[in-house]
Amino acid sequence: MRDLPQLLHLIASFSKENRFPALPIELYEPCNYILTLGGKRLRPALVLMGHELFSDNAEDALPVAWAVELFHNFSLMHDDIMDAAPLRRGEPTVHHKWNTTTAILSGDVMLIYAYRFLTHCGNADTVLRLVNIFNRVATEVCEGQQMDMNFETRSEVGIPEYLKMIALKTAVLLGGALEMGAASANAPTTDAQHLYEFGRLAGIAFQIQDDLLDTYGDPIKFGKQVGGDILQNKKTLLVLKALEVAPEVDCRELLQWMQTGSENPLEKIAAVRAIFNRNAIQELVSNEKKRFQQEAFGHLASVQVPEARKEILRKTVADLLERDS
Amino acid sequence: MRDLPQLLHLIASFSKENRFPALPIELYEPCNYILTLGGKRLRPALVLMGHELFSDNAEDALPVAWAVELFHNFSLMHDDIMDAAPLRRGEPTVHHKWNTTTAILSGDVMLIYAYRFLTHCGNADTVLRLVNIFNRVATEVCEGQQMDMNFETRSEVGIPEYLKMIALKTAVLLGGALEMGAASANAPTTDAQHLYEFGRLAGIAFQIQDDLLDTYGDPIKFGKQVGGDILQNKKTLLVLKALEVAPEVDCRELLQWMQTGSENPLEKIAAVRAIFNRNAIQELVSNEKKRFQQEAFGHLASVQVPEARKEILRKTVADLLERDS
Repeated sequence: MRDLPQLLHLIASFSKENRFPALPIELYEPCNYILTLGGKRLRPALVLMGHELFSDNAEDALPVAWAVELFHNFSLMHDDIMDAAPLRRGEPTVHHKWNTTTAILSGDVMLIYAYRFLTHCGNADTVLRLVNIFNRVATEVCEGQQMDMNFETRSEVGIPEYLKMIALKTAVLLGGALEMGAASANAPTTDAQHLYEFGRLAGIAFQIQDDLLDTYGDPIKFGKQVGGDILQNKKTLLVLKALEVAPEVDCRELLQWMQTGSENPLEKIAAVRAIFNRNAIQELVSNEKKRFQQEAFGHLASVQVPEARKEILRKTVADLLERDS
Repeated sequence: MRDLPQLLHLIASFSKENRFPALPIELYEPCNYILTLGGKRLRPALVLMGHELFSDNAEDALPVAWAVELFHNFSLMHDDIMDAAPLRRGEPTVHHKWNTTTAILSGDVMLIYAYRFLTHCGNADTVLRLVNIFNRVATEVCEGQQMDMNFETRSEVGIPEYLKMIALKTAVLLGGALEMGAASANAPTTDAQHLYEFGRLAGIAFQIQDDLLDTYGDPIKFGKQVGGDILQNKKTLLVLKALEVAPEVDCRELLQWMQTGSENPLEKIAAVRAIFNRNAIQELVSNEKKRFQQEAFGHLASVQVPEARKEILRKTVADLLERDS
């Protein structure tokens, strides 16, 4: 069994050997570009970890791992157009560096290449199993992106809907990565499903943690401006929880702040945090995160392989869930 | 064996029973919308015809046929954004009726649904064979769309490049439809490949015919404005052939017309047609079309099934290639 740095090294080598074709350069250069912007390669690493629970040959799962990474980058390329985002990991997004047309078509071909890599994974039965998981998850990611866009223009969003949206938009792909890794090692369906639930629930916990860190994170460790969500009037779980539990006067004040611009950003951040603080929102949302986290690890415990084999996966996910929240 | 109207009836029934889910409505309504705009359903019909060469159960190939139709409509939805086209079959395009964001995401989910339908076609070996053909063709369609966009801004385009572009952008999908139909009936690889070549070469002949009809078609039967390509300064095969064979004075005049607007459309169309006419371009391009057509039918002849089984496919393609050119 290999540790995280070893798995990431395998992925890096595979990516170098499997760059997109040279021509047409206008089509494939943006695909290579977005893949070189970095990123933690968490999803392909989860595929390999899911595989290594049941087999010692993580190499066999590299094409599946790469398919998941290509799918993730396809969705980033198209989401960045939809969100009109100028930057991705500090560099120009594809539609900014080239144009929207390029970002659409290069994204399309990346999605098709994801399916191409899936066909390189074992015999026909395994490939069919992988394609079925991939199709299910890919559909859900599109549905999650649609829900997220709908929320931007809606005045009322309930907490269950919000949790469903973050599950579909980001968490199911983490679950699917683990499930596909297990499937590529011909793992029993029950174990693969527990791994899917582990990834999905941990993914929801990650997203809740992101909401918490954006308002309560250590500015140095967080790496982005603390309070960014408040300034963008984002309907995070903190906001939705406050609207659920706070007295009416606080709800009204919060909604008022969410309709103002950011002329005085520090004042706005301080005022919204004060509303959160006097209603114990950080604690309530942290408890929500812990609930998902515990449920997630319950599913990992149910996977029928020796506990020692789970150690790298458990530690990787636990470390990610303990960043300063 | 069923004739074309019977096959189209099967496809229409299947499409009614397999509409997209209701929710999220913003995601799936545009998918159902573009599918109701009509179109000849030629591609799914070719899938069923390819299947019926080897089996009497065209129903078994309906999910493959529908996958091909979904892929085609996904590519139309995204191409219409790239071409900034306001209308498709006389109705508003998706990005005009909704917006670009919707057309991107709904197109993405249509492509994923195409893969979902492919998994409903027989055993794992057959599905893997189908996915491999689909992946190859889908990649080529993206490459063809990129070449087409590149040509718009390039001053010189050679005839071989032009033929490669139309092959990738539209013809390979016709070939792929036949090949997938054959594969879904477990046809021998050699036969499936001959069918692919038949469809691909016939598809190139169709495109050449489209170029001819746009300038020389019967205005009533053609259904669009004759001379539209001339007014849009499109680099059709007529233009490229003229630039290859005409004396320099004619080439210079043609290039001048292609840099002017359409203030006096009838004058421009007449002048460009006169250049074509005095250089026998219609005849030269018709010969080119016939060359592809003959080569195509040579491949159909090589398919090892009784000639009687090929009759519906042969007649369908021959009829399409005899529209007034």
